[in-house]
Order: sequence, then C-alpha cells, then structure tokens
Amino acid sequence: MKELFKPRNVVVIGASREPGKVGHAVLRNIIESGFKGEVYPVNPRADKVLGLNAYKSVLEVPGDVDLAVIVIPAQAVLDVMEECGRKGVKYAVVISAGFKEIGGEGIEREGKLIEIARKYGVRVVGPNCLGIIDLHTPLNASFASIPETKGGIAFISQSGALLSAILDWAPKAGIGFSKIVSLGNKADLNEVDFLTYLGEDPETKVILLYLESIADGRRFIEVGSTVTRKKPVILLKGGITEAGAKAALSHTGSMAGGITALKAALRKAGIIQVSSVSELFDMAIAFNSQPIPAGSRVGIVTNAGGAGVVISDLLVSRGLKLAEPSRYTVDYLRSVLPPVASVYNPVDVIGDAKADRYGVAIEALLRDPNIDSLLVILTPQVVTEPEETAKVIVELSRRYPSKPILAIFMGGGKVEKATRILIENNIPVYDMPERAVTAVLGLSNYRELRELLTKALEYVEVFDVDKEKALEIIEEVRRQGRRVLLEHEAKEIVRSYGIPVVPTKLAVSEDRAVEIARKLGYPVVVKISSPDIIHKSDIGGVITNLKSDDEVAEAFRTVISNARRYVPTASIYGATVQKMVPKGREVIIGATKDPVFGHLIMFGLGGIYIELFKDVSFRLAPLSIYEAKEMITETKAYTLLRGFRGEPPADINSIVNILLRVSKLVTDIPQIVEIDINPLFVYEIGAIAVDARIIIE
Amino acid sequence: MKELFKPRNVVVIGASREPGKVGHAVLRNIIESGFKGEVYPVNPRADKVLGLNAYKSVLEVPGDVDLAVIVIPAQAVLDVMEECGRKGVKYAVVISAGFKEIGGEGIEREGKLIEIARKYGVRVVGPNCLGIIDLHTPLNASFASIPETKGGIAFISQSGALLSAILDWAPKAGIGFSKIVSLGNKADLNEVDFLTYLGEDPETKVILLYLESIADGRRFIEVGSTVTRKKPVILLKGGITEAGAKAALSHTGSMAGGITALKAALRKAGIIQVSSVSELFDMAIAFNSQPIPAGSRVGIVTNAGGAGVVISDLLVSRGLKLAEPSRYTVDYLRSVLPPVASVYNPVDVIGDAKADRYGVAIEALLRDPNIDSLLVILTPQVVTEPEETAKVIVELSRRYPSKPILAIFMGGGKVEKATRILIENNIPVYDMPERAVTAVLGLSNYRELRELLTKALEYVEVFDVDKEKALEIIEEVRRQGRRVLLEHEAKEIVRSYGIPVVPTKLAVSEDRAVEIARKLGYPVVVKISSPDIIHKSDIGGVITNLKSDDEVAEAFRTVISNARRYVPTASIYGATVQKMVPKGREVIIGATKDPVFGHLIMFGLGGIYIELFKDVSFRLAPLSIYEAKEMITETKAYTLLRGFRGEPPADINSIVNILLRVSKLVTDIPQIVEIDINPLFVYEIGAIAVDARIIIE
Repeated sequence: MKELFKPRNVVVIGASREPGKVGHAVLRNIIESGFKGEVYPVNPRADKVLGLNAYKSVLEVPGDVDLAVIVIPAQAVLDVMEECGRKGVKYAVVISAGFKEIGGEGIEREGKLIEIARKYGVRVVGPNCLGIIDLHTPLNASFASIPETKGGIAFISQSGALLSAILDWAPKAGIGFSKIVSLGNKADLNEVDFLTYLGEDPETKVILLYLESIADGRRFIEVGSTVTRKKPVILLKGGITEAGAKAALSHTGSMAGGITALKAALRKAGIIQVSSVSELFDMAIAFNSQPIPAGSRVGIVTNAGGAGVVISDLLVSRGLKLAEPSRYTVDYLRSVLPPVASVYNPVDVIGDAKADRYGVAIEALLRDPNIDSLLVILTPQVVTEPEETAKVIVELSRRYPSKPILAIFMGGGKVEKATRILIENNIPVYDMPERAVTAVLGLSNYRELRELLTKALEYVEVFDVDKEKALEIIEEVRRQGRRVLLEHEAKEIVRSYGIPVVPTKLAVSEDRAVEIARKLGYPVVVKISSPDIIHKSDIGGVITNLKSDDEVAEAFRTVISNARRYVPTASIYGATVQKMVPKGREVIIGATKDPVFGHLIMFGLGGIYIELFKDVSFRLAPLSIYEAKEMITETKAYTLLRGFRGEPPADINSIVNILLRVSKLVTDIPQIVEIDINPLFVYEIGAIAVDARIIIE
Repeated sequence: MKELFKPRNVVVIGASREPGKVGHAVLRNIIESGFKGEVYPVNPRADKVLGLNAYKSVLEVPGDVDLAVIVIPAQAVLDVMEECGRKGVKYAVVISAGFKEIGGEGIEREGKLIEIARKYGVRVVGPNCLGIIDLHTPLNASFASIPETKGGIAFISQSGALLSAILDWAPKAGIGFSKIVSLGNKADLNEVDFLTYLGEDPETKVILLYLESIADGRRFIEVGSTVTRKKPVILLKGGITEAGAKAALSHTGSMAGGITALKAALRKAGIIQVSSVSELFDMAIAFNSQPIPAGSRVGIVTNAGGAGVVISDLLVSRGLKLAEPSRYTVDYLRSVLPPVASVYNPVDVIGDAKADRYGVAIEALLRDPNIDSLLVILTPQVVTEPEETAKVIVELSRRYPSKPILAIFMGGGKVEKATRILIENNIPVYDMPERAVTAVLGLSNYRELRELLTKALEYVEVFDVDKEKALEIIEEVRRQGRRVLLEHEAKEIVRSYGIPVVPTKLAVSEDRAVEIARKLGYPVVVKISSPDIIHKSDIGGVITNLKSDDEVAEAFRTVISNARRYVPTASIYGATVQKMVPKGREVIIGATKDPVFGHLIMFGLGGIYIELFKDVSFRLAPLSIYEAKEMITETKAYTLLRGFRGEPPADINSIVNILLRVSKLVTDIPQIVEIDINPLFVYEIGAIAVDARIIIE
C-alpha cells in the first residue's frame, strides 16, 4: 500500500474553489499537511484551484498516478472510475456518498464501481468515507483536520463521524497517530487488508479498530493472529447488543456476527476488545510508548491514601494483581520513608512527599523483580512538586526501560504543566485512576493473549476418521430433501468420526425391532424416528429399560401409535432401538455455524442444569488441544468432572478427544450447520454419545 | 450544623504568618473565600496575621465563638481543645494530624480529644482532615483552593488528598459544589451526621460520598433511606476488594464491612454505588441540573451513526432500554428529516445536520411519551454548528423541563465553546458516550431505588413466635459454655418461631431412641448428636430409612461407635431421632451477622449445586415481604421452584413466610451469629426444615 500512504502524487477529482465544500477541504488538507509529492486538482470548470493548475480530467494529468481522491457527486463517480482505470491509477479513495448506504440504486452503483475498479486493477478505499491520513509521510487525504502530533497509533474506523470527533479530541489527550483510515462502505479494501499492511508498518506500534461489521471472519482471525504476534490490535466493535446491531443496520447495512462467536474469534486472533472509545485510547497511549510487562503484578506509588485504595479495588476487580514487593524493597523503603508512610503496596509516600521522595519509592519498585508494571499517582497537595515529580518519572523511565510506567496526575490547573512534561516525554498520563487501570489491563491482556497464541494454535491432526462414510449419509439425506438427520443417521456420522456412540439401529417393523434388540442385548430403549418430531419424550415417543422381545414389540407399537396420534402430520420412518448404557456424568458437546466466523464449538454441563445455569463454553473450530482443555476447565461442570465430594474423577481426556473430533467433523464437512451430542455420558474411563442430532444446510 | 457551615465567626488557632504553612493557607482561604463574618487568628507569637489582629488564645477572642479551626501540632491540640471547651466554642475543625492514623500514642490522644470535646459539648470535625467548605456562605475553612463555581453538589470525603485533587480538577469539568467536607478520622462527626444535615440542606441537590469505613451501619441505612427519598446519594466505597481493604487499613485503620452486606445495605438505604471517581461526578452533574426520568427508556439523537451504535451497545449492556418512539414520532420525523436519516432510535440526523435539524428531532423526542430521557450526540463535521446546536438544546430543555437531557459533544477545539454554553446553562455535557451512559444510568437507578424504598420498607409484623422459649434454649446452651447448638436445640428454636420442622428428639439411650421412633412413626432417621461433629454423614453418623425398633436400636449403637472411633475427642450427647419426610425441592435459608450492617439473610438453591453455582441472594434483616419475594425471584432456583419442565410449582409463599420468620428470629435475638436451615424441603403445599444449625455469640 505504499502508493496509498506514501504516493508520489495525488490527484483530487472534484477539487473545488469554494471554501466549505468537501472538495475544497480535501485539497487544502493535502497541501497544508505538508505533502511533498505532486498534487493535481481536477475540476472541469476551473483553471486553478488553491493556486495549483487544474485539469479537466484525470486523463490529462501528466505521468503515472499513484493516488486519486474522488470527491464528486455519486452519479459521476462511475465515469471517473473508468477514467482512473484507463489512466492506470493505483489507488482511489472514494469520499463521495450515495452508494450501498442509501440502499436501492446505491447498492447497484457500488457494484458497478467495484466492477470497473477490478477490471483495471484500481484498489478502492470507501466509498462513503472520510479519507486516509499518514502523519509520517505527511499526507492528509481527507476532509478532516489533522491532529498536531504524529506517533505510533494507527486507527482504522468504519465510522467517519466518530473518526472526525476523535481527530478533534486527540490533541488534548496527547494522542500521536501514525495512519488513519476511514473504511466507509468497504466495497474493496477492508479491515483485513489494512491490518495486513499495518502489521508490517514500522511507523505503527499499535492498531486501533472501530468496526461495525467484519467482512471475512476467517481471514480476519488468520491475519489478526499474525499481526498480534508483532503488535497489539484493539477493537471497539459496534453492534454487539441487539439494539446496537439494529442501530448499525440502519447505519451502514452491515451484518453483525454473533457476540459469542466474536469473542471466540478475537481470542483466536489475539485481539483485545474494548467497549468504549475512552478505553480504546487509554490503552493505545500506553502501548504507544511503554514496553509489554512480564506479568500482571502491579505496583503503585501514591501520595494519597484514598486514591491508592480506589485503584487497588479497581485493579483487583478487573483481574489484575496487586504486586507484593520483595522483603528487600519493604525493608529498604522502611529505612528511607517517613515512619507513617506505607511501605507495602500501594506504597503511600504520604501527602508531604516532594519529588525526591517519589523518586526513591519509584526506583525501589522498578528494581523489584516482584513488580511487572508501575502506576504513579500524584494529587496536588500543599508541598507537592508536580513538575519536578514528572521529571523524576521521565528520568527513571529512561533508566528502567523494560518496565511500563503509567502516571495518574489527578487534578486540573495544578498538574497541567506536569502533565504536558509527561506527554512530551512519552509517559502515558491519566487524570483518573480508572483510566490507568484500563491501560495496564490492556498491557497485561496483550501479554496473555500473545502467550495464548503460541499455545492455542498448536493443532493436532485427527487421522482415523471416515469422511467418505459421513459424506455418503449426508448425500443420501440431501437426496431425500431433508435437512434434519434422523437419530441413527446422526449417530452413524458421529461414529464415523471415531466418537463412541451407543449402538442404535432403525427398525421399520416390530420383528426387525426385536431382531435388533436381540443382537444388541437387553435391556434396550425404543424411540420414535421422525425428522418432524424433535422432543420425542414429550409425545410418549421414548420407552426405556425394555428387557424382553415382547416388551420391545409392544414398545414399537406404542411409540408409533403415540406419534400418529400426537403429530398426525409427521412423516414416520419407524423406531430406533438402542442399547441401554449405565448412567455417566452428563455433558453436552455441540456446534453451530456463525455466518461470519464459521463453526462455534460448545461444551457444557448436561441435564436440566444446562438450561438453568447456562454453564457452557465456546471456541471456534478448528480446536487445538489447548483450546479443548480450556473449554472444559472454564466451566463449572469441570468441578463435577474432576470429582466433587468424593466422587472419582471423570475421563477428561475422552472429552478432549471428542471435542477435537467434532471440530474435525464440522471443519471437514462445512455443510453441517448444527450438531448436538446430548447427552454425552462420561465415565471414569471413556465416554459415550447417548443421543446425537445433526442439521445440514 | 448552622454554626459549622454558616458561622457568625471563625477562629483560626495556629494561624501562621508564613506562606506555605497550612496555618497560613487556612486563614488566607477563609479571607479570600469572601466570608462575611468575623475572623480571628490565634497565634501567641504574632500581633497581626494577614492584616488581622491576632490573639494569644481562643479565650481572649471577644464574644461567643461558633467555629474554631485548629491547625497546630498534635501535641498542643488537647490543651487548645480544653480552651475551646471553656470558651463555649460550638464546632471545632481539627486539621492537625498525629492521631489515630499514626497508631500508638495517636490513638490515645484521639480518645482524650473526644473526651474533652464531649465534656464541653464541642462538636468536632476530624482530626487529620482538610477542613470544610461552603460555597454558598461563602466559607473556605480548609487548606485547599476553592473551586470557582458554586452549585448543588455536596461532597463528603474520607480522603483529604482525593478531595484536594478533585477540587483542582472540578472547574474544567464544570462541577458546581454546595458543601465540601473532609471527614478525617471521624472521631466525633461522621458521614451519618453530615448526611442527616445535607438531606435537609436546600442548597444541596445531590450528595456524594467517598468512604473507606462506615461508622454505624444500622444508622447509615436508616438515615440514608430518609435522605434518598428527597435527594440522590452516590457512594464511592474504598476497600471493597480484599486488596483495597488492606490498602484502606494501612491508610486510616478502618474496618471494612463485607461487600455483600454493603450492597444489601445500600439497596435498603436507596444509595447508588459507583466504582470510580469519574462515575461519581458523571452522575453528579446530571443530578445537579436534570429532573429524575419517569422510566428507563432512553432516546438518542446523533449526527454520527457510529456513535449511535456504540452508545446503543453501552446502554443496553448496562441495563437501560433503547426507547421505541411512537408511531406518530416516526411518521413525523420521516416527513421532516432527509430520506437517508434514520427515524428510529437512535435518530440519526446524519452528518450534514445543522442546529435547526437537531432542534426538530430533539423536540419530537421530548414530546414523545415513549421516551423518558434524551441523549444528544454531536460530532464536529464539515457543516455542523456546535454552538447553535448547544443553544437549541438549552432552549428546548427550558421548554420541556420534566425530561432529562444530556449532551455528548465529542471532540476538542471544535466543540469547546459549545461545551461552555451548555455548562453555563446547566445542561450536563460529556466528551464521550460512555460517560453520559453512566449518568443516565444513575438517573434511572435513582428512580428505581426510590420506588423500591416505598415497596421494600413495608414491613409486616410476625406475631406468633415464642421468643421466651427460644431465649430459654440459648440461655441453657450458654450456661453449658457452648456456642454451637445441637441439632434438636436449633430445630426447637426454629420451631418456636413458627417454622415447620421435621420432628426431632434427642435420645441418650437405645431404649429412648426406640421409644421416640415409635412415637414419631416409622420410617425414621438416626443422627449422632455432638457439638464437635459438624459433617455428620462423613463419619457415618447418619442412618436413614429405619423401619423397625431393632433397626433403630442398632443404628443408635452404630452412630455412637462411629463417632467414638472417628472423633475420639468429641463430646457426645447421644443421637437424635427424626421422622423421614418425603423429598421436596431443596433450598437453603440462612443468616450471618455482618459486623457493620447486622444480620444478612441468605436464600439459595440447596443440594450440591449451591457449592457449584453459588446461586444465592442476600438481604439485610429486617426483611419486608417485598424483599423476601425478591430474594427468591432473583435466584435461578426460582425457575426450578416455579415449575420447570412440567413439574408443578412449589409453594413460594411458604418460603417467603419462613424467610420473614428467620428475619424476625435474628432481629429478636441478635446473639445468633449464624443460622442455617439446610435443606428446607419445599412441596406443592408447604415446606419443612429438615436440618438446622445455629451458632451464638
């Protein structure tokens, strides 16, 4: 994307002479941003725009064109794109609105736009976007004002308005950007393309995303997991609640994926999710200048006991650990701080602390191997020295570059200068404890996610599966025009993937039922078989514990007649006969297909408690062994399985094995949109699927 | 407290001539705050301080003294308090440190200070505090700078340093204070005293508290519930996690109550709890100027789709409702807004909206009865008119004074003037969506809590209890030097409070066991009876389903011999014989005594799932019928009790009845520190306590 962010030249198609027009603002911004390449305004009704020679068309511009910015009414964009194509333009930023977002003819127009662009190989940003900015080039090819400072934060936003507000707000918050991209309708280039590029961009240290939709879930995960090994990616996803998704729909017509699938996807991609704009930037400024901590143990130095208490509560309630300083640090601090100071964590240097006392405490904690990151709180009191203390922090941060330091300078006028000193010297500074806690949580989460990536992505291949057999059954079901598999068909597929299944056969007559029962060995269970009856027990369609030929024959007649009586319209295939097995601990394993991210595997406690407590966990396929284990251990069911109140532990490895096989099954055969093994009985040794249900596309 | 906040005169004991000294700052602050009464510096080594005649001692000051501010070394404070007493000083603000907070001699000194003050009837703020401020008097009797603007927000803080930071930060956030109190060590006046006064203070609209400890939990609830009927009270409680409590301990030596008890107490008191300083003030500025909404349905007007999406997500995930505008509003908006605008909620007036279009949309939503409060989001785009839009909001807010309006003006320089206009005209304004969501959540929560107060505090008296009987049993247990009651004793107490109990008698011999069993009727259960054996089943101390005299006799021998074998040191009282009852749905009811707030009643699902899922709810005694019902309905057990999967519903009223009786029991007999009815079997009609355990002080 060099020609997009660092083009040799830029053509502004629709460059206007009238201030207040978007086409004027874009040209002016490019010039004022200090862009060093050539700039060519295109305007058929002007000779000069903003002092530059204007051209009637992009075709008249001399030489090859790297980047065209298009700011003309939607109706004219297709013709202009054709011209750009013929000219060999490499990138086009289409700011113009009037495409997919207005529905109807807009959708059609967007389709044609991309068709033309593809024909000529022009890559398109937008349409319906704010533009792109590269603070390092420098180039502001947007109609937004550019922030004052450049830095390492890249921001990719699917909302232009949000972006313009943030660009206006950024200077006061001390935010330094590298690149800013307004995605618009994402007709061609989308978040995955920019993630790929920014992942390799040496000017970008942290990537922020605001997205309402994710174009290609699988590629997003793939690219995400590559990029996050190198640098942090933080996502604010709009539309995570039903209300938000509805708002997003009326906004850009995006399809919002399920929230559970999103969470699972972000975990696999190593991406941090936040829920507000403040969190996005509170984390970003820490990532921009601070190293990643080695652990989650946080040290605190404060001159206000109350602030220390509040921040301790926040840290712990958000899952971080209050560090325990080493014996040496405690003794040392006791020998140098006043007697009423607190030498444990938070270290309270008390209200009359000047900069030197802060320095002593900060350095002691920075040297302590028990502390992974440091928060320094200052409240302006009578003798406090905010500026001097800021300088001490800057100095110590340089001397101990491997530990993150975050400053919390609470107050207004009295800490203003000190805050500026910290910002200018690349120390993240916050006015409230909670903001710094968010930031240190981000640093710590990133470290964990990165570690997880290594573990979670070690896949093992499951070999001994009979894919042919499974496909054969599905083919037959499809041939019969069904989407819901019968129980014995679902079980046959499950078995073909090496998952132990209670032997189950379809009987179409009483005699056959008895024959099967004899072969399986008594006792057996008889169940109605019909794709139209899902809750078989409710209509008297299941009879258990049958111990003789007569009982089986009678049971066969009963379930058939019950089904005919209660669901007269049901198409009945007969009844299945299956072996009774001893009761094990009941769990459930299943999978559903998310439209954006693919198959989501579920594990949970079975029986009535699954409905009551929703004690379930999710991961996206394909599963690694590590992920399958995590799925089990993060549920409360794990406590039961491990052996609760003196019971022997259940065979957890069997469950892991079955999870991996289900993952393999839905990955091999993506037409499966739903599968449920419920219940799976787990024993001290082994486990067995007692019932199975599969729905195909 | 008129003489504290609006005194006729103030004496500053320890008024210093040296700038930089606290005693100098306090006197200067009083003078500069514009205080209209007399000010008398006391300084034995000066004739004049800051141009005022100085006195050698408070005794020399002419006339009666309302308020003395003491800023001298701790060692001299006791003598000075004695003088204040003799002079008849009404209130003393003791800023001096060196008391309880330093431990040892400090604790003793604080004790003596209060002894002297009580002797003379001097009421004391502090010691170890920042002072007090009344912006309306005006009087700044503290060593902190005073904020510029007065308003309706009162702030009571147990941390002086946090207070000084907030006073410095307040002007930029547009915070207008009424009164500010630094509590210090709370040796005499504490949060309850100030709550009482501020509840009646016409200058105060909302009361903010930062507390690390609560001096008297029962009075706090009592006073709180009275005050919150009139105005909102918001609490930031420090020390709610173990880490925070530890930090608070090293800070002021306060005892932190349990978090569960705190939550229950705040609910009873109608007090809103927040977890950060930002939340405290984000809510406060809304309460300061806006009416309480009639419901929790929120309307949104935005010129940025993305911001609308983000705020919808935040609103819904924090429990608020996105309003559904009436058919009329939707039709009207469709007729007046541009076709691409969204006329549902959030109403997106789109990027090119000027002030007039905002006005149309805002007014439509303000008139809509389906909308309880309104959020207006503005992002600065090319043609946006921030100042004009601000004026439109101000104007409409005046015309529709019964609905709260909160503004979110995102950005920096471009919205600065507009933000000022809003602040000056009493419209709460935020720079980020999440801050406004916190505020509207506060408004909405307050409304709910106030409604709850009316319902939750309708107590019914439970009459038919035999308190004498219960006290007799406890007296006997105490006489025997025990704290743990035997099962039959605990059951007898429970029964004396009208709770159905499985008939249970203590047998001291085989013969007696058989005799009891015959009277109760077979089948019966035999259990070991020993205060030293809590988990009776684990040592083979329980034998169930005994159907004959012989079985009972043998069971008696077995449990006694098992107890002797496995717990040789246990003192054995014999064995209890109780009737076998049919199994009902198992729940648990209990109570523990919180050191700060008193008895906390618990209800939850019984059986092994209580340990696994912690499906329990809590309320403080005394319980109202409404609270008892809430306790049941907020658990997941409720789903089971209501009749899950075709089961008949259980007798919920019986549980309510038993909860009220347990509440009555622990209120009548506060020496009970722990009681457990576990399990309680609940049937279609009725419920019965199968086991009971009581521990006394």
